[in-house]
Amino acid sequence: MSDRPELISVDWGTSSLRAYLADASGVTLAEIDADKGALSLGRGEHEPYLASLLRDWKSRHPELPIVASGMVGARQGWIEAPYASCPAGLAEIAAATVIAPSAALGGVRIVPGVSCRDARGAPDVMRGEETQILGALAGERRGEGVYVLPGTHSKWARVEGGRIVGFETFMTGEAFAALKDHTVLGRMMAPAADRTEPTGFALGVDAAAALQRPGDLLHAAFMTRTFGLFGQLAPDQLAEYLSGLLVGAEILAGARGANSATVIGAPALVQRYRTAGARLGVELTPAPAHCATRGQIAVLKAISDARR
Amino acid sequence: MSDRPELISVDWGTSSLRAYLADASGVTLAEIDADKGALSLGRGEHEPYLASLLRDWKSRHPELPIVASGMVGARQGWIEAPYASCPAGLAEIAAATVIAPSAALGGVRIVPGVSCRDARGAPDVMRGEETQILGALAGERRGEGVYVLPGTHSKWARVEGGRIVGFETFMTGEAFAALKDHTVLGRMMAPAADRTEPTGFALGVDAAAALQRPGDLLHAAFMTRTFGLFGQLAPDQLAEYLSGLLVGAEILAGARGANSATVIGAPALVQRYRTAGARLGVELTPAPAHCATRGQIAVLKAISDARR
Repeated sequence: MSDRPELISVDWGTSSLRAYLADASGVTLAEIDADKGALSLGRGEHEPYLASLLRDWKSRHPELPIVASGMVGARQGWIEAPYASCPAGLAEIAAATVIAPSAALGGVRIVPGVSCRDARGAPDVMRGEETQILGALAGERRGEGVYVLPGTHSKWARVEGGRIVGFETFMTGEAFAALKDHTVLGRMMAPAADRTEPTGFALGVDAAAALQRPGDLLHAAFMTRTFGLFGQLAPDQLAEYLSGLLVGAEILAGARGANSATVIGAPALVQRYRTAGARLGVELTPAPAHCATRGQIAVLKAISDARR
Repeated sequence: MSDRPELISVDWGTSSLRAYLADASGVTLAEIDADKGALSLGRGEHEPYLASLLRDWKSRHPELPIVASGMVGARQGWIEAPYASCPAGLAEIAAATVIAPSAALGGVRIVPGVSCRDARGAPDVMRGEETQILGALAGERRGEGVYVLPGTHSKWARVEGGRIVGFETFMTGEAFAALKDHTVLGRMMAPAADRTEPTGFALGVDAAAALQRPGDLLHAAFMTRTFGLFGQLAPDQLAEYLSGLLVGAEILAGARGANSATVIGAPALVQRYRTAGARLGVELTPAPAHCATRGQIAVLKAISDARR
């Protein structure tokens, strides 16, 4: 470890931006949080926005490379970095990076997303998560296993020989919000109170385990309402039930029978998934922090190694 | 058949009201459509509203009984008609009707809803659909089988010996609307154009048949977006895909392995379910029209028979 900055790392998603001044091992020395997501800026606005955010760091450390991952590389982002197709590991992803031109910043290296197709030919995509997976893999010897990135659009990726061989997106977080805020299910919900035991979440996870057919999810979700109507769950536990149901169903489908996976994400969400996983026999082990930065460092090193 | 009015039949749901002047066989001689649902009126407002709507019919036919079913009997409706518990047939439902007092109308008989519990103790409820099922059963000799009422909250009921022995609600219609209007899935959708072959709907139904685990529904729904991103479905077919996926999943779960059922509902929705059912090996036979009115007539007859 050292405290010498080696990289300016930018995690630029749909709705927010985080930049880190990081050392060679991924330890972050300084951080900038900004609220303009990559999809909230128009054509030509990304470069000046990032340049103004990074002006101080860049003037103090003019030699540092700048790497960005996430929706910044989407067609509607700053510059398109076309998807690398599965199987995709460090070499394939590093080779598909794109340089976004910037006089002020000396160019910004954009990491591409990854795409795959399932057995029936249906496509799936990720942007940003591939870099986090590379970061989690950076500390691993084998580079095998299942990697989960929970969230609005959760990703479950299968890694073999250090490469992402396939993955699925589950729109768990977004479906939860839409059902809670825009259907009858939200009507009786009260904000979650502090409880020793969040009974609703556990009940939801157990209900997910008891589902028999896929469409039963549309029935079990409706139980959010009837549990409230019949007083079987307190109003502050109804959203917990719905969350447990959807997260539990996602874990059982995403794991596809695997009994362990590595989970990458914000601590509170990671804990929620670990709690559900434990009830379902799927052990979820947290990845180290700052996987996006660690993945970008790995990408830079792969590019540098390839040039030798 | 006769054209002599025998009943004023009121189908008063959450968001609208339909009243029919009907003969003894359920043929409707006149109809009133009104837009005040049972849950959009406050305490004390239901009786004067209905009295004003029915004034002409009542003055011409002062002797006619008035029967209402639907959310009008909910706790937040006109007067609560507590749920009849499964198993519930004509006798149980007729015995649980409640008279809502009205000087102008001479009282209005309210048909109760039906409740049940599944094997795990989770409750479910219907209000209005039980009367439609009784109407569909009125022409049947055996009174056995599966009855489907598709919609915002679809109901799948199992009938044995003329009684509803259990049912499940699937929030298909409401989940479709919430996902279409309040998630990323709707962004690329265009209104459905007239097509000889609605490829999206069939693709969605087939995707439902291919789901392996319940949580896969959260993945297959996301494919609405990636099929659009990759140009595999035209923008006007994306909502069709999502609809086919959810309707297909509902049918497979609701039928629980049965290969036929009776479907009760508006013609366009019934046709959509029949199309999906045909792809999935579940034959859906439409019930006669005006099942709510026919069910109310059966309820009145059961009450009259019980008094003899």
